[in-house]
Amino acid sequence: MTSSHSEPEPGALVDLRSDTVTRPTAAVRAAMFEAEVGDDVYGEDPSVAALEARALELFGGPGSRLTTALFVPTGVMANHIGLRMNAGPGDEVVCDADAHIVAHEDANLAWHAGIQTRTTLTERGQLSVEQLRRLIRASGPYVVGTKVIELENTHNRAGGTVYPIEDLRAIRALADEHGLFVHIDGARLCNAAVATGTPLAEYGKIADTLSVCLSKGLGAPVGSVVLMPAEKREEAKVMRHRLGGGWRQAGLLAAAGKYVLDHHVDRLAEDHANAKLLADRLRGNGIRANVPETNIVMIEVADTVKTVTACRERNILITPAGPGVLRAVTHLDVTEQGVLEAAAAIADCA
Amino acid sequence: MTSSHSEPEPGALVDLRSDTVTRPTAAVRAAMFEAEVGDDVYGEDPSVAALEARALELFGGPGSRLTTALFVPTGVMANHIGLRMNAGPGDEVVCDADAHIVAHEDANLAWHAGIQTRTTLTERGQLSVEQLRRLIRASGPYVVGTKVIELENTHNRAGGTVYPIEDLRAIRALADEHGLFVHIDGARLCNAAVATGTPLAEYGKIADTLSVCLSKGLGAPVGSVVLMPAEKREEAKVMRHRLGGGWRQAGLLAAAGKYVLDHHVDRLAEDHANAKLLADRLRGNGIRANVPETNIVMIEVADTVKTVTACRERNILITPAGPGVLRAVTHLDVTEQGVLEAAAAIADCA
Amino acid sequence: MTSSHSEPEPGALVDLRSDTVTRPTAAVRAAMFEAEVGDDVYGEDPSVAALEARALELFGGPGSRLTTALFVPTGVMANHIGLRMNAGPGDEVVCDADAHIVAHEDANLAWHAGIQTRTTLTERGQLSVEQLRRLIRASGPYVVGTKVIELENTHNRAGGTVYPIEDLRAIRALADEHGLFVHIDGARLCNAAVATGTPLAEYGKIADTLSVCLSKGLGAPVGSVVLMPAEKREEAKVMRHRLGGGWRQAGLLAAAGKYVLDHHVDRLAEDHANAKLLADRLRGNGIRANVPETNIVMIEVADTVKTVTACRERNILITPAGPGVLRAVTHLDVTEQGVLEAAAAIADCA
Amino acid sequence: MTSSHSEPEPGALVDLRSDTVTRPTAAVRAAMFEAEVGDDVYGEDPSVAALEARALELFGGPGSRLTTALFVPTGVMANHIGLRMNAGPGDEVVCDADAHIVAHEDANLAWHAGIQTRTTLTERGQLSVEQLRRLIRASGPYVVGTKVIELENTHNRAGGTVYPIEDLRAIRALADEHGLFVHIDGARLCNAAVATGTPLAEYGKIADTLSVCLSKGLGAPVGSVVLMPAEKREEAKVMRHRLGGGWRQAGLLAAAGKYVLDHHVDRLAEDHANAKLLADRLRGNGIRANVPETNIVMIEVADTVKTVTACRERNILITPAGPGVLRAVTHLDVTEQGVLEAAAAIADCA
Repeated sequence: MTSSHSEPEPGALVDLRSDTVTRPTAAVRAAMFEAEVGDDVYGEDPSVAALEARALELFGGPGSRLTTALFVPTGVMANHIGLRMNAGPGDEVVCDADAHIVAHEDANLAWHAGIQTRTTLTERGQLSVEQLRRLIRASGPYVVGTKVIELENTHNRAGGTVYPIEDLRAIRALADEHGLFVHIDGARLCNAAVATGTPLAEYGKIADTLSVCLSKGLGAPVGSVVLMPAEKREEAKVMRHRLGGGWRQAGLLAAAGKYVLDHHVDRLAEDHANAKLLADRLRGNGIRANVPETNIVMIEVADTVKTVTACRERNILITPAGPGVLRAVTHLDVTEQGVLEAAAAIADCA
Repeated sequence: MTSSHSEPEPGALVDLRSDTVTRPTAAVRAAMFEAEVGDDVYGEDPSVAALEARALELFGGPGSRLTTALFVPTGVMANHIGLRMNAGPGDEVVCDADAHIVAHEDANLAWHAGIQTRTTLTERGQLSVEQLRRLIRASGPYVVGTKVIELENTHNRAGGTVYPIEDLRAIRALADEHGLFVHIDGARLCNAAVATGTPLAEYGKIADTLSVCLSKGLGAPVGSVVLMPAEKREEAKVMRHRLGGGWRQAGLLAAAGKYVLDHHVDRLAEDHANAKLLADRLRGNGIRANVPETNIVMIEVADTVKTVTACRERNILITPAGPGVLRAVTHLDVTEQGVLEAAAAIADCA
Repeated sequence: MTSSHSEPEPGALVDLRSDTVTRPTAAVRAAMFEAEVGDDVYGEDPSVAALEARALELFGGPGSRLTTALFVPTGVMANHIGLRMNAGPGDEVVCDADAHIVAHEDANLAWHAGIQTRTTLTERGQLSVEQLRRLIRASGPYVVGTKVIELENTHNRAGGTVYPIEDLRAIRALADEHGLFVHIDGARLCNAAVATGTPLAEYGKIADTLSVCLSKGLGAPVGSVVLMPAEKREEAKVMRHRLGGGWRQAGLLAAAGKYVLDHHVDRLAEDHANAKLLADRLRGNGIRANVPETNIVMIEVADTVKTVTACRERNILITPAGPGVLRAVTHLDVTEQGVLEAAAAIADCA
Repeated sequence: MTSSHSEPEPGALVDLRSDTVTRPTAAVRAAMFEAEVGDDVYGEDPSVAALEARALELFGGPGSRLTTALFVPTGVMANHIGLRMNAGPGDEVVCDADAHIVAHEDANLAWHAGIQTRTTLTERGQLSVEQLRRLIRASGPYVVGTKVIELENTHNRAGGTVYPIEDLRAIRALADEHGLFVHIDGARLCNAAVATGTPLAEYGKIADTLSVCLSKGLGAPVGSVVLMPAEKREEAKVMRHRLGGGWRQAGLLAAAGKYVLDHHVDRLAEDHANAKLLADRLRGNGIRANVPETNIVMIEVADTVKTVTACRERNILITPAGPGVLRAVTHLDVTEQGVLEAAAAIADCA
């Protein structure tokens, strides 16, 4: 396996805290430097238009409800706008109890959108059709009905788990049966696609709205894309503006985003291999770890603070993910060599 | 068993749709007619003060955090104010996925209060300590932490189920361990107390805030009480006013509320006996029904619309409660005779 | 002039703080005692239905957009529901900068409804057509447009001032020109009607939604009515429920409300005469006071706290209304004799 | 006067719609290309840190409450976060009735923050101390009190008007007298400073929170800075994240922002001269126009749609700003030559 980056010096920092820490490569910077720009609030930025067209090519297409894409500053905003295109104040979204939208988006659905979340505990961050049948409620006088099913793929807090595409299709059928919308939080959807060999467009057929993050494993500096039916585009742009996301000459960032969609998707397989390598090595050293489905390794240790601190002294950065659990995430800026160093350090410090 | 009401004519309406339909008895009306009143926004209504003092006597006392009571128009407002005294925009309340606050309060926690709800599916509407341990999350930077545990006792949609007091105490201990607040939706808490012989004050020791409805089985025409620490009283009054609950000469209603707290609690045992009678008769006729713990009977029928309609023609009112399920609720205005008529009608029409 | 109440003892309390402090008369209590009731959430309370029909008779009729009335606990809730029937999150309501809805309703339009208020300072609490032309804004991309004009008649903080009906008609025409809705906060609209001899139905022709309070000068213990187009009724009932106003056997209160609409409107003229008498006497004693248009007297004194305290010792209750200004409000429970005593006390204590 | 840009071809596009349309110069792009970056959510982006430090140098300093700066995607987000640091749900902000925050920020203060806005019509977009004395209200039980005074300098919709620094100091004194916060919407504050020769730090002494836009006349592609007391920084970062502004490797944009703060402030004088030139020429042709105080020209024409359309055909872009009024804004990408062409075109097409 060869990385698209040169190998770092031994002892250099190995940052496994998140795949959000990736830095733009020279090629990404070059793409940005040459980008043409315009005022994106006026819809006049050609580089933004090119990125949005490319995202639509990948995730939309025949059989898809996704007919427009909108470039926004973050994955949080992409999810937020996507969900608000199909739910408003007084409506209900059902999702897993550990979904990113209820754990890490600062309760913005309730606070800013007046949307009620209803959840259930699940095994792998994945809602089954049976659980959904129990959760979904028809609306009536003085009864709050369900409006949207939200699915996170891959699932962050569950450790990068991947929904089988058949399960997603079954949930889509259930949604159709009940007249519900489906939003996919696809911050790491490219990881799911690469891990399972599922074409991106297959996911696009499941969702009414879908978010994809460009600045996690893909390695763009800033930005996410939210896809939706074209008739929602103007409303979504106003919502983006209302949130403070109506940026101006965003084309420089969009050029980076397009570059990584063009060049950094397939290489996610390297990150997955690195994650497996890390987990294997740890288990080989008697440390309990998940069998990573994608790029996230969940590691059980006795004292998370102690291990994190000791690793930091050895230039290995990892984060606590709950009581007795650490999280390590592989990405563009982490090499096989770095993973081996990290495995050794964690094993020593656990 | 004797009812406090005279027996109705055979064939008179038997209204089992809800215990909210009770009409004030002559004694309740008399209490209202004689009540002294004042402007309750100014805190000058003596009858309101007397009701609030009586509620505090019953649910507060030594070992309780509940040191003031506030009279409000409805149970929905009582829950809403109670929860908002301990949670605000951006905070999280955890509860059962079928709780009244997420099913029947019009998503007002999200819409009006910006409060995120997180839930899990349960068996009897009751959260276990184990489930709560998984649901509760500590707050951190960009992590929404849990603030309040909400418990519904008895549980409406689960069919009037009662939390064992030991379970409530274990949840209180868990809340203390994590620094969380506990709100009890006690719309039918008197039913739980009567069914289990638990003194009302024992429930008062569990909760930081607690709502009790006076106009369900207890039979007052209008009103609920929400109890809380006294230092929250002024804030709660402003919240009541903000919601449009700052009524003026509410003493007439409060006098009714006090009367039913004084005279209609113990007689809830009659309603429970009637519910058991109804369920027994139905099962005796081959119809599946729950074993009622309090005053709610859940009845399985093939075609809910057909059975409801046919019963209505026989002056028996019941309501659908989900696919293939009817709900019948016994109360002050339902006699043993009425229950027997209802059982016969449902059996004929199922 | 004769009051419908017997004369109080000399030296008895004269409560001029607000017309909200009125207590139900014996006749009102009798009307309540005899009222038939039902569950108002189910729409089954005959006394509520009778009150709503009566309100519609008075304020609706040919040429009016008001085709249904809804009984709610307070004037705050009546305004809130009325405004939310025509404006939602992200919409704008324009009103006077001292309107009750921005001064005394706890910012609930912003907090609970997400509605933006935009105002201007005015002379008598009244918006002119010219001011409105400057305030009203057409909506556009990234431009918040105006949705509703809110008018308060009589105007509380301006001292019970009355909009000339011609001015209201001109504002209605302006609203039609711009496709806007008009909400009238008619908490004291009967005072305006009696003061000017304008039939209530004339005001009903101006408004898309209109609130009327039954528990201020009219003397019902609790409740207001909000009128609107009939097609909004179900949405308004859900909103009432969401706010915690879905009361049950509200018919007892509704019977009181209907009684006062039938019997206490014309007698508001007594309150107006009493207000004029109070202001005249004060001016005769060298104290600056407004020329009351209805039942509110604004009194200038050097030290409001001192005067309020000293008056209280003489059993005269008045309230501060701003720096150097007191407010006295006449109502059903204030007699000519009481007014004379109040005038003397205020003059002594100013 | 020489522009920092090379002269465009005759007949090239002259875009006077807004100063948001500026495109990054070669020097700005070079600054971006070389920027070091990191994960800004983790606070690890050195270029963001450098920009924030530079902004603090300019607007903070001795006597200022502004002790930290935060880089955010837009001016809308900068205002929104700034205001929410000092006001929350149920609080009131007073401002001019034509302020950007009530006209062009999509009612986000009401919808997302639950903040009530109260305004008055003004002459030049500027609140006088006298008007503020009438608007400001002390809070009390059931009385919404004022919390924040918001000032816009320069004022967009009023045509780039500048607050005299003495007026701002008088308003600051008034705010202190009443215990209120002051937020300055300084999207174009550098224009005000350059037009009046007031040091930027003098404005910093007025405000509790202050926003400055880098992508209007200053010419950065994306971004604004909001300044506040340092103890608010963590809360502000969470709010930014909640809104969807928690971007990652934002340093590339920050480097552009720092460059324009270093190099493009003084040159705003060119834009002001160009605006004056445009207005003079128009008046010379008998067209009514304001006397621009900064870079905004307000032009009265009979038919705005006709003039805008006709100008567009001559490659001159301007926008309607209300009935009978056009707006033209000069900026970094508009040369003297362009202005002369625009003046001629508008005169021909008016």
